[in-house]
Amino acid sequence: MKRIAILGSTGSIGRSTLSVVESYPERFQIVALAAGSNIELALEQALRWKPRVLSLAREQDAGILASRLRGSGLSGIDVVHGAAGTVLVATDPEVDFVVSAIVGVSGLEATYEAVRAGKTVGLANKECLVAAGELITAEARRQGKPLLPIDSEHNAVHQCLRGGRMEEVERIWLTASGGPFFRTPKSEFASITVQQALNHPTWKMGKRITIDSATLMNKGFEVIEACRLFHVPPDRVQVIVHPQSTIHSLVEFVDGSLLAQISVTDMRLPILYALTYPDRIPSDLRFSIGDLRHLDFCPPDMAKFPCLALAYEAAAEGGAKPVALNAADEVAVAAFLEEQIGFEDIPRIIRKVMLATPARNPESIQQVLALDTEARLFAREIVAQRRQEGSPIRAIS
Amino acid sequence: MKRIAILGSTGSIGRSTLSVVESYPERFQIVALAAGSNIELALEQALRWKPRVLSLAREQDAGILASRLRGSGLSGIDVVHGAAGTVLVATDPEVDFVVSAIVGVSGLEATYEAVRAGKTVGLANKECLVAAGELITAEARRQGKPLLPIDSEHNAVHQCLRGGRMEEVERIWLTASGGPFFRTPKSEFASITVQQALNHPTWKMGKRITIDSATLMNKGFEVIEACRLFHVPPDRVQVIVHPQSTIHSLVEFVDGSLLAQISVTDMRLPILYALTYPDRIPSDLRFSIGDLRHLDFCPPDMAKFPCLALAYEAAAEGGAKPVALNAADEVAVAAFLEEQIGFEDIPRIIRKVMLATPARNPESIQQVLALDTEARLFAREIVAQRRQEGSPIRAIS
Repeated sequence: MKRIAILGSTGSIGRSTLSVVESYPERFQIVALAAGSNIELALEQALRWKPRVLSLAREQDAGILASRLRGSGLSGIDVVHGAAGTVLVATDPEVDFVVSAIVGVSGLEATYEAVRAGKTVGLANKECLVAAGELITAEARRQGKPLLPIDSEHNAVHQCLRGGRMEEVERIWLTASGGPFFRTPKSEFASITVQQALNHPTWKMGKRITIDSATLMNKGFEVIEACRLFHVPPDRVQVIVHPQSTIHSLVEFVDGSLLAQISVTDMRLPILYALTYPDRIPSDLRFSIGDLRHLDFCPPDMAKFPCLALAYEAAAEGGAKPVALNAADEVAVAAFLEEQIGFEDIPRIIRKVMLATPARNPESIQQVLALDTEARLFAREIVAQRRQEGSPIRAIS
Repeated sequence: MKRIAILGSTGSIGRSTLSVVESYPERFQIVALAAGSNIELALEQALRWKPRVLSLAREQDAGILASRLRGSGLSGIDVVHGAAGTVLVATDPEVDFVVSAIVGVSGLEATYEAVRAGKTVGLANKECLVAAGELITAEARRQGKPLLPIDSEHNAVHQCLRGGRMEEVERIWLTASGGPFFRTPKSEFASITVQQALNHPTWKMGKRITIDSATLMNKGFEVIEACRLFHVPPDRVQVIVHPQSTIHSLVEFVDGSLLAQISVTDMRLPILYALTYPDRIPSDLRFSIGDLRHLDFCPPDMAKFPCLALAYEAAAEGGAKPVALNAADEVAVAAFLEEQIGFEDIPRIIRKVMLATPARNPESIQQVLALDTEARLFAREIVAQRRQEGSPIRAIS
């Protein structure tokens, strides 16, 4: 019986994890849950899963939930709140496995503490590897515990890497759908509207990740994640556009063999893989081999998608740069969604913030968070300036 | 330093093996060679590789070679001949690794003896697994030594299987180019000419294997080989037509993940893999990821290609049936190549011979060879009768 904590239980990955746990009651047990501010769903999950401890973001919400739990006659659930509450969930002594699925930098501290507490961690939070990858992977190595990726690309890479030893890897190939502007000429990029950018051809996702997919920044983040997770330099991680997203990623070995992973696009599959690793257990998530038809591949155009090039720079420089990359991107995307800046301003803002960020190696999660705040402030300044001037942000060559 | 014997050193796989050995002089050493009747090439190989022992098929050829070696001033090579000579090469005490690449049943005994002598064996000979698979794999298990496949499909499967444990495998998918008649309507099959059948769209190979590719019998043999090599029942081995032959095969795991292997189509790659397993070493056999475009897949039509269905039957029944399948096919293909029978007569002859073959489990290579001879005789009788009657062989429903 594997005893599980979920950080971000009411989000998409959290709910998918609970769906997987539900399918294998003899294997998995929910011990602790950290939710955000969705009290109704948190209550439902508390009643269904009866965790030892449940955390909500706000103290007030935690009070409401605790009283409703008392009202329903259920006792024995310790309702906590805030960042400290999430850490309690992540480090509960009865937990073996922590699913880290809180979106954004607020997932960082609890995930790091889970690793420090010797838990096996399934990573669905991007920032853990982009902004704090060096710290978290170093700690996981110290603990001798695996960090298991819960997203289709890195999970695919993890599977393919089983075909050889790390020193036998020539290159990791991350597949990318290409986003909605893959075939749009560069000359039309300046006039891309929010509506066009939100219209992703194959995926329905949150707004930030949809824009990050349109700029290929999301793939850039994945390059950084792959570098940290698998301890490879950025020149050994390459991106290949594959619109059908059937092959989730590939690993090329030194002898010239490539292994590719293929499966249905259902997050329950990487979740199940992470929860059961190093075993595999039967699921009904079958890929129909008949769907294996007409797969296209082509290289991405870095000139058209400068966010991808910026991510490679950040991956190579490490330290504070990926923190700035992520923070600036989040601010720039929000500004684009509010129509304060244009599509091509997104990489311009990120580049400005990255250039202004000194090369430093954060030595704690607190330092990462401080760098993140700093980068956001500067990015917001640039956006404000842009609005004031009413003119496009000047490109930096 | 791995010390290598090659059974079939002057054939295509033998020469490719020597080319691999040549590229890594610090890793591999040629200790023993068994050639057929190509004295010139055998002499050249003897002078280049200076093996301890070299075998030719015929006594007379061995005499000529020995005297020419003396003439060239090279001493210390023991020149032997015949089946016994091949066994000497396969079991030489200084050999670690035997490449089994003699075409046809004449490779069986020496390969079996190599396994019995505790050698690690790289298998390029089809008959070892089709006709004597149960015997040879049982002996390899007793010896605790791996049998490493040297052909693109099973080598691909071997690589993909590293992604999980055998009991976690749902299905093995062998890819097939589909052959020249993949899109030809069944109604035109009766009039297929030798010339049409020899015109394989993607591969240049020997005549028998080209016809076996046109009937899909070659893929049927591979199904049997996969069953024996990986200890899976035939319903867990499936064929998928993939005309580009970029993905060499796939393994589907119980959790719903598939791993696929991709590489250049160069036999040196599976040879290198087998020679270095469980390691991988750098090669210049690079697959260009840019070539990864427009991959097509579709299921094979068993009604159009009854040879494939016959192979599944033989795989399921085991024992004498796969021996009969292989023997009858070789005779039928030879008769087709001599225009004695039609294209559709090939599966008819095989089915007749298989039906006439009693269910027996050969307990030695000698019994396999006796069954093989018996099946060939019967197949030749059917061909002779067909020629006498001058009419197509009656289909058996």
